[in-house]
Amino acid sequence: MIRNVHVDIDHAPYSILIGEGLLQSVEPLIALLAQKRVAIVTNETIAPLYLAGLVAQLEAAGVECQSIILPDGEKYKTWDSLNLIFDALLTARAERKTTLVALGGGVIGDMTGFAAAVYQRGVPFIQIPTTLLAQVDSSVGGKTAINHPLGKNMLGAFYQPKLVLADLSTLSTLPQREFSAGMAEVIKYGLIDDLEFLVWLEENMDALMARDVDLIAYAVERCCQNKARIVAADEKETGQRALLNLGHTFGHAIEAGLGYGVWLHGEAVAAGMVLAAHASRALGHLQAADVDRVINLLQRAGLPVVSPALGGERYKALMAQDKKVDAGRIKFILLRQLGEAYIGELPEIAIDTALLAGCESSK
Amino acid sequence: MIRNVHVDIDHAPYSILIGEGLLQSVEPLIALLAQKRVAIVTNETIAPLYLAGLVAQLEAAGVECQSIILPDGEKYKTWDSLNLIFDALLTARAERKTTLVALGGGVIGDMTGFAAAVYQRGVPFIQIPTTLLAQVDSSVGGKTAINHPLGKNMLGAFYQPKLVLADLSTLSTLPQREFSAGMAEVIKYGLIDDLEFLVWLEENMDALMARDVDLIAYAVERCCQNKARIVAADEKETGQRALLNLGHTFGHAIEAGLGYGVWLHGEAVAAGMVLAAHASRALGHLQAADVDRVINLLQRAGLPVVSPALGGERYKALMAQDKKVDAGRIKFILLRQLGEAYIGELPEIAIDTALLAGCESSK
Ligand SMILES: NC(=O)c1ccc[n+]([C@@H]2O[C@H](COP(=O)([O-])OP(=O)(O)OC[C@H]3O[C@@H](n4cnc5c(N)ncnc54)[C@H](O)[C@@H]3O)[C@@H](O)[C@H]2O)c1
Ligand SMILES: NC(=O)c1ccc[n+]([C@@H]2O[C@H](COP(=O)([O-])OP(=O)(O)OC[C@H]3O[C@@H](n4cnc5c(N)ncnc54)[C@H](O)[C@@H]3O)[C@@H](O)[C@H]2O)c1
Ligand SMILES: [Zn+2]
Ligand SMILES: [Zn+2]
Repeated sequence: MIRNVHVDIDHAPYSILIGEGLLQSVEPLIALLAQKRVAIVTNETIAPLYLAGLVAQLEAAGVECQSIILPDGEKYKTWDSLNLIFDALLTARAERKTTLVALGGGVIGDMTGFAAAVYQRGVPFIQIPTTLLAQVDSSVGGKTAINHPLGKNMLGAFYQPKLVLADLSTLSTLPQREFSAGMAEVIKYGLIDDLEFLVWLEENMDALMARDVDLIAYAVERCCQNKARIVAADEKETGQRALLNLGHTFGHAIEAGLGYGVWLHGEAVAAGMVLAAHASRALGHLQAADVDRVINLLQRAGLPVVSPALGGERYKALMAQDKKVDAGRIKFILLRQLGEAYIGELPEIAIDTALLAGCESSK
Repeated sequence: MIRNVHVDIDHAPYSILIGEGLLQSVEPLIALLAQKRVAIVTNETIAPLYLAGLVAQLEAAGVECQSIILPDGEKYKTWDSLNLIFDALLTARAERKTTLVALGGGVIGDMTGFAAAVYQRGVPFIQIPTTLLAQVDSSVGGKTAINHPLGKNMLGAFYQPKLVLADLSTLSTLPQREFSAGMAEVIKYGLIDDLEFLVWLEENMDALMARDVDLIAYAVERCCQNKARIVAADEKETGQRALLNLGHTFGHAIEAGLGYGVWLHGEAVAAGMVLAAHASRALGHLQAADVDRVINLLQRAGLPVVSPALGGERYKALMAQDKKVDAGRIKFILLRQLGEAYIGELPEIAIDTALLAGCESSK
């Protein structure tokens, strides 16, 4: 069964196809090519697993394929890696109608999307996400980016793919730690504005973590539906789309503070959501029992719920680098209640309280 | 008298203001700021001439100013320069509503626009073009780019400014060679689709080159009107906008072949337009007298009309790197007649004929 979520963006609507074994029959991808030519960007881990099969199918259909294999890791989500893509494309004379295909997780997807956005001022682009995180979140919505030493995802573009092909079968090779990291973003959707889904996750988390494919399929579809709706309403994040950053202001500080790659993005977001919950409690919105529900669900998903002891000043300095800063004031995503997030500011005391409650040093 | 040309782009219409002394009263710029904060990007040549005056005015109006001064030259239109901008912005914690202001010629405008397009996935951006070329061409229409060793303007974005402020008084300090280079793009508009303007240029070229300000004002306005119309109809260059590249496929080959900066962009475009005219004649469209008219007008504007002897194979190899290549075929901009350009292909023999007629080796 192939599930199809439509992303209804004005200038460039597209489909997210979700199902098992989609990489075995890539006709929908071929049908969208502006030119029978693609450049597949992937990394050293994913290439041996899925690249040959994809290339064989495309070549059988007469599509010329170039493969660009990058080193694996968040720490390579940099301009240097992007430049490896550009060098390869220019050396092979990739053209304006050549499609870039991202085969991999969020790191490959974000970089390939950015490369597609700027190569010759924009070439077509298709996402084949192979991590849970990429399938439920990063491959959808057109945010692309690379990191800068002074901030995560600081350079990038809004650039929509022509298609997202989420083959659930690729998750079979995904390490459990990465699966957990993706589950952080899944839980995020429940917390933001989908209480029904949050309850469903509480009921089904053990089976999900045991990799029940039907449940995973449902979760991926539900997340994509939620994200598609939010993105269609606010593509460039002038308003409500920012809600998708729940846990991310704290989370980015954790990632940058520890050094990219020490904690996985999803792990940092998990601990960050706990901090956001503590902060929301400090504001009087959540009850202790609500915070416990958040912590409990994240723990069952194998995620960290205690943030590293970077120190309050360092957290604040790192958060002041965030993209969601306006006239020096950091915008936080907070919870009015479980299943209802909002954009607001945090008095310093609430930040301190949250850090005290949620960081390792305080235990 | 301030002339106002409206660029009617769906999602982001904006004005081009043209007049003398506009840098002395930048209220229209201040009125558009999303935040009372700007980062002005300029270079070492322009900064001593115009930066302090601009900053003084902005600061008097309570606008916080950061100045970013880059080295001067086409050879610095690279990622490294872009990164100097990002480092400065991040160090100063420039935010999503901070406006980037490009104060300079096409090199500064193209780089600043690209920086604005990707910094935090897009911040507001204003153009203050200070060369004739930038006032009539590069500051209008939203093409931004940097060069790559393997090709000019290969990395970039379509990203529209919020405002273009073309102060004609700044041209008073522009070296005559640069003024000529800008005149190449002015003549280009006449050749593409404005025969009336071409005839006007033939009548007024000597006075224009003697810097008659009223004539210059009219020429800048007319060029901007032409460009605004073409860009509004085809922002992303899927069709007719490509006509604006008349002379550029050959011209980019000249620039890259000699090494960026040896010939000015406008000079290369001038010689490239002569090659395009020769090629159009080889196809039977133009008469010898038409080609002579083109050559004559460019010469009166102080521009080179004979291309360097790079050799036919090198020209073809360089042109095959162009962005206007589809399935290996180079798209040329050719002339059906003076004042009527079209997009087409060139048989190899016509390229050879044009190079033979238009290159130094053949003289
Ligand atoms: N663009 C967005 O909207 C958005 C949203 C959320 C996260 N992100 C970004 O996504 C990135 C995180 O993505 P991620 O969690 O997918 O990390 P990732 O891309 O680093 O992938 C995680 C690891 O799993 C490996 N891998 C991928 N697929 C595999 C498979 N099928 N089998 C075995 N191994 C596999 C990868 O090689 C990597 O080692 C971060 O950079 C984050 O900023 C972007
Ligand atoms: N984006 C577009 O649509 C577009 C169109 C045409 C050209 N371009 C690009 O524009 C660039 C060429 O622009 P350019 O011709 O303005 O070159 P430029 O920016 O290098 O400026 C030319 C020289 O004049 C100096 N200068 C600028 N203003 C001055 C002033 N008022 N007084 C004294 N000196 C001054 C500059 O410092 C430089 O040395 C090329 O990189 C080309 O690719 C872009
Ligand atoms: Zn995330
Ligand atoms: Zn030009």
